[in-house]
Amino acid sequence: MELKPIGLIHSRYTQATGTPIQPCRAHESPGQVTLHEEFVEGLADLAGFDRVWLIYFFHRASAAKMRVIPYRDTVERGLFATRVPARPNAIGMSCVRLLGISGCILRLEEVDILDHTPLLDIKPYVPQYDNYPVQRCGWLDTVPDQAVVADARFERKEFSTSPDKR
Amino acid sequence: MELKPIGLIHSRYTQATGTPIQPCRAHESPGQVTLHEEFVEGLADLAGFDRVWLIYFFHRASAAKMRVIPYRDTVERGLFATRVPARPNAIGMSCVRLLGISGCILRLEEVDILDHTPLLDIKPYVPQYDNYPVQRCGWLDTVPDQAVVADARFERKEFSTSPDKR
Repeated sequence: MELKPIGLIHSRYTQATGTPIQPCRAHESPGQVTLHEEFVEGLADLAGFDRVWLIYFFHRASAAKMRVIPYRDTVERGLFATRVPARPNAIGMSCVRLLGISGCILRLEEVDILDHTPLLDIKPYVPQYDNYPVQRCGWLDTVPDQAVVADARFERKEFSTSPDKR
Repeated sequence: MELKPIGLIHSRYTQATGTPIQPCRAHESPGQVTLHEEFVEGLADLAGFDRVWLIYFFHRASAAKMRVIPYRDTVERGLFATRVPARPNAIGMSCVRLLGISGCILRLEEVDILDHTPLLDIKPYVPQYDNYPVQRCGWLDTVPDQAVVADARFERKEFSTSPDKR
């Protein structure tokens, strides 16, 4: 099962440390997608959507472990009960604001994604498909809801010395 | 960029025709995940969540085209403005109800996924991360909101004669 990037995601974040953990925590975090030319025709009709899902590859994530201490907690949790980037298939998804499209460029806001992340897919955000009321959110119901940014705990070591250009 | 299934998704749907197009259209659609043994430890703490995202490979989707007539419309739309399965990277995501976990088995409801679909990832569904109010949903704002199931238009031909066991 092989995947090929359809474009690149650009943002102000050059290392995990300090990157917002989710779009809801990423205020004033502009970014953009540069889509490869062969896929630009597929952007037709997308500009009418306020938000889009970006599906991407966590290209700088470390190897997956089945027990992890997630950013918002202090004890180990099962990996699949968390959204940490270091996963067996390191696929990320973020619901970002779509500001506009010009040619192969998508202008975005609320981007919680590292610069140069390979893009795998774009899907329209549809509340009817993506919003569901739930009563229980597991361990997340028990931790404080404070602003959280990532740190280096799930970042591959060979990248951890890269300069922070923010 | 290579992916390996972490398990299999089972459902009552053996061909695209008649499969609900989204979990919100999949009432009384039980299913389950069988996770490969090496990943079972990663299920710890997941049972406390009402819903989970399944990330999977549309293994029976046809080749991607940049203009498609989606299930809910009668005219062509740009592929990335739709959720059709035939995409450059054929990754699907469905927010399904989690009923329970026993060993490597997840019991699920509202499953809109074909039987034997390869599973790539499980993430907890977190409204704070996944629910966003939007004003505009593009072409979807202009079409009738009626119950819709899939048909064979995005299914690979070599599968289209498989018997319907439902």
